[in-house]
Amino acid sequence: MRIREATLVDFDQIWPIFHEIVAAGETYTYARDTTREQAITLWMETPRKTFVAENNGQILGTYYIKTNQSGGGAHVCNCGYMVSSSARGLGLATTMCEHSQQVAEAFGYQAMQFNFVVSSNESAIRLWTKLGFETVGRLPKAFLHPGKGYVDALVMYKWLSQRSQENS
Amino acid sequence: MRIREATLVDFDQIWPIFHEIVAAGETYTYARDTTREQAITLWMETPRKTFVAENNGQILGTYYIKTNQSGGGAHVCNCGYMVSSSARGLGLATTMCEHSQQVAEAFGYQAMQFNFVVSSNESAIRLWTKLGFETVGRLPKAFLHPGKGYVDALVMYKWLSQRSQENS
Repeated sequence: MRIREATLVDFDQIWPIFHEIVAAGETYTYARDTTREQAITLWMETPRKTFVAENNGQILGTYYIKTNQSGGGAHVCNCGYMVSSSARGLGLATTMCEHSQQVAEAFGYQAMQFNFVVSSNESAIRLWTKLGFETVGRLPKAFLHPGKGYVDALVMYKWLSQRSQENS
Repeated sequence: MRIREATLVDFDQIWPIFHEIVAAGETYTYARDTTREQAITLWMETPRKTFVAENNGQILGTYYIKTNQSGGGAHVCNCGYMVSSSARGLGLATTMCEHSQQVAEAFGYQAMQFNFVVSSNESAIRLWTKLGFETVGRLPKAFLHPGKGYVDALVMYKWLSQRSQENS
């Protein structure tokens, strides 16, 4: 398994992963009927960089990294991760999240923020917590879950560079 | 003083207000060197709707409203407000915020979220709190203030419709 930068050619394999997750409407705040064209804009073009995790040419996961806010907030990045349903439970999200933190530091970001972690997505919350992300916010009933109705969303945050933290 | 929908013609009067606030770099996460063209995109075109507060043809304040997240998050809106330095202390922010809540309810939004209130902006925090916004998150050192260095940013949130709250 290796993680490398995505190219537009990869989108043929990214789209089924994206579509399955987004159409389910349980974890991401993209419209459930997001089209392939819109997905290319959202996942490949808007972010600063997009990566894929592949095994023998098969793409099993993907993530993006982007600057979360401009101006005085531009030292904080944001990432989103997706794992193919065929590759769940293999630690791919952990691997991608650790990779993304290295990329973030290489880009000069000092912190990473997840703006909207749906509170019913317990496995994600457990994972990000284990990887050092702190729950710094809870948005009451900010997500309309297709099965559960209104649920809270969490804001999770991690300061990346210990050295920067000590000096600032 | 009246609040009305902004048109592109109004931008001649909006720009000095926007530019003064953004160039100061103390409250908004727009780049401090945001150009007039970029400001038109950010303030007039990207939002769902933009309003101005005017008195005898003079624009003293402006705000935008937009959907904060798509998909399952689309029932929450986001607003940003700017008051001319010549019109501070007249209650304009209060008037615009109350107006925006009415607009939000008319659009069918159920909640309003401020994603990034710089913690050193004490007058804003005091005002939003007074207007019923709850501090639901605190992003550690998420803002690089030009004078104070890294400061926290707050996430503030208000559920708009009591009836919706009781029924959900």
